[in-house]
Amino acid sequence: MPSTSSPSTPSSTQLVFIDPAFPAGRLADASQPQLLATDLGATRGDGIFESLLAVAGKPKKLSAHLSRLASSARFLELDIPGEEAWTAAIDTGLKAFDQPEAVVKLLVTRGIEGANLPTSWVQVSAVPELGKQQREKGLDVILLDRGYDADLAPRAPWLLLGAKTLSYAVNMAALRYAHQQGADDVIFTSADGRVLEGPTSSVLIAKRHGKTKQLITPQLDSGILPGTTQGALFAAAQKAGWELGYGPLVPQDLFEADAAWLISSVRLLAPINRIDGKEIGTVQNQAELTAELSEILAGTE
Amino acid sequence: MPSTSSPSTPSSTQLVFIDPAFPAGRLADASQPQLLATDLGATRGDGIFESLLAVAGKPKKLSAHLSRLASSARFLELDIPGEEAWTAAIDTGLKAFDQPEAVVKLLVTRGIEGANLPTSWVQVSAVPELGKQQREKGLDVILLDRGYDADLAPRAPWLLLGAKTLSYAVNMAALRYAHQQGADDVIFTSADGRVLEGPTSSVLIAKRHGKTKQLITPQLDSGILPGTTQGALFAAAQKAGWELGYGPLVPQDLFEADAAWLISSVRLLAPINRIDGKEIGTVQNQAELTAELSEILAGTE
Repeated sequence: MPSTSSPSTPSSTQLVFIDPAFPAGRLADASQPQLLATDLGATRGDGIFESLLAVAGKPKKLSAHLSRLASSARFLELDIPGEEAWTAAIDTGLKAFDQPEAVVKLLVTRGIEGANLPTSWVQVSAVPELGKQQREKGLDVILLDRGYDADLAPRAPWLLLGAKTLSYAVNMAALRYAHQQGADDVIFTSADGRVLEGPTSSVLIAKRHGKTKQLITPQLDSGILPGTTQGALFAAAQKAGWELGYGPLVPQDLFEADAAWLISSVRLLAPINRIDGKEIGTVQNQAELTAELSEILAGTE
Repeated sequence: MPSTSSPSTPSSTQLVFIDPAFPAGRLADASQPQLLATDLGATRGDGIFESLLAVAGKPKKLSAHLSRLASSARFLELDIPGEEAWTAAIDTGLKAFDQPEAVVKLLVTRGIEGANLPTSWVQVSAVPELGKQQREKGLDVILLDRGYDADLAPRAPWLLLGAKTLSYAVNMAALRYAHQQGADDVIFTSADGRVLEGPTSSVLIAKRHGKTKQLITPQLDSGILPGTTQGALFAAAQKAGWELGYGPLVPQDLFEADAAWLISSVRLLAPINRIDGKEIGTVQNQAELTAELSEILAGTE
């Protein structure tokens, strides 16, 4: 597949800008410059985004992603397009992309300084091969300190904890740091020793107690992003008889889990093989529980 | 002045991209899109920058800014253009801008995913009026928790503390929060109670002891950006007989100072009138010391 080509070529990245003059969104050539160099998204990381999976031309969990985008917009005081505009632009992008699976990104920047006119667009691109491989082979993860206390978020709204902003340099640096250590991914811990989240994913563990199976994710009010895929899986797993838990979790809980995963919208449920070099759970538990939960997740919308 | 026009119109924002095919840099129209929407600067805030002042077509403290840009690049593992390329592009931009004073921004993003080809450019624009007013009238400042301990930076390099990245959403949110409180600016404090820095400036206080005058800035190893203007002023003030101090500072030190300032490359030395509503120093001390230090600063390169 060519990496850049005209917007009409299937499987190349598609851009659709939200523009009042184009009710279905304005398709734009991703291989050509489309952003002003003075846009505060580019100069200050001042904006928000969502990444979601589309299957057979239909976005998954769209309502949860639009709801989280709206929450991020409130944190940043950004006036964003309405759900109809997003839905139309996503549809336009997916039709132009025309592949069985796609990553859909929704992006909003503050636009240029002083203009008070956010720049909003949809990007549709191919699902990365690496994520599929990691889902099958599992992940080696390291724990890294995020520097904050887990109870900081509500008393420091200016830190934007819980908003999905375009200021992801630290998340990207943490992943590079992990790769240098020979690991695949990261779990952030708080300064006060709680398990938080991955740089681009939520943390999930399973515990078996006799016939009871419990799914646990860290406390949602600890300054982490509420995971849309974690949320969808939790709702479906509960219907399938699982018990649910919402932390608090400390690293020891990870090491004592029967299985653990990083879960996100595009890579989905990726099992964790090792954390800081230590094996997590057993091979059999991991295989059984991953298969069971993956099937539950596949049944969600 | 028109806010957008062709690159050849003086006083409109000028862009100069660093491009091997153009030894003096490639002038580009700031009113037209110049960045790919898939550039990681726009989608992840994954890049670095510097802002500096130019007077009479000559950048101030260029060597200190290029040195700090190189330091930020090491934090982010970005391969950035050499000093000659920056110097040439800045010169091209300043000639096109053709005004007695200008703000010069140097920006580098990681470019598009996987291409390993950073995008580097210079932006030359007008000096904001607001900064000049604040320099004359002084600032109302609030203290906000930055969430980190002051000793975190050296043991958590993935947090990029001390790098000037494009991920400035928190800095911008802190300024919006201050404005909502009726304040002009912010001083961040660490979770363990130390004075750190402003979102776009360094903190400086003065103490008189008899005939001795002391200038103090927070510890440079507390995860803050080393201020280029603070550095230049310190060197010159020492020659003029001032004693220098490098923290640690706690909020009480601010309240007991004879005068305090936020100092940065474009707004320069802006006196602080009030912090959290409390007057800092005396009107006479502030006026005398600001005049003396502004004169010392004006004499630096």
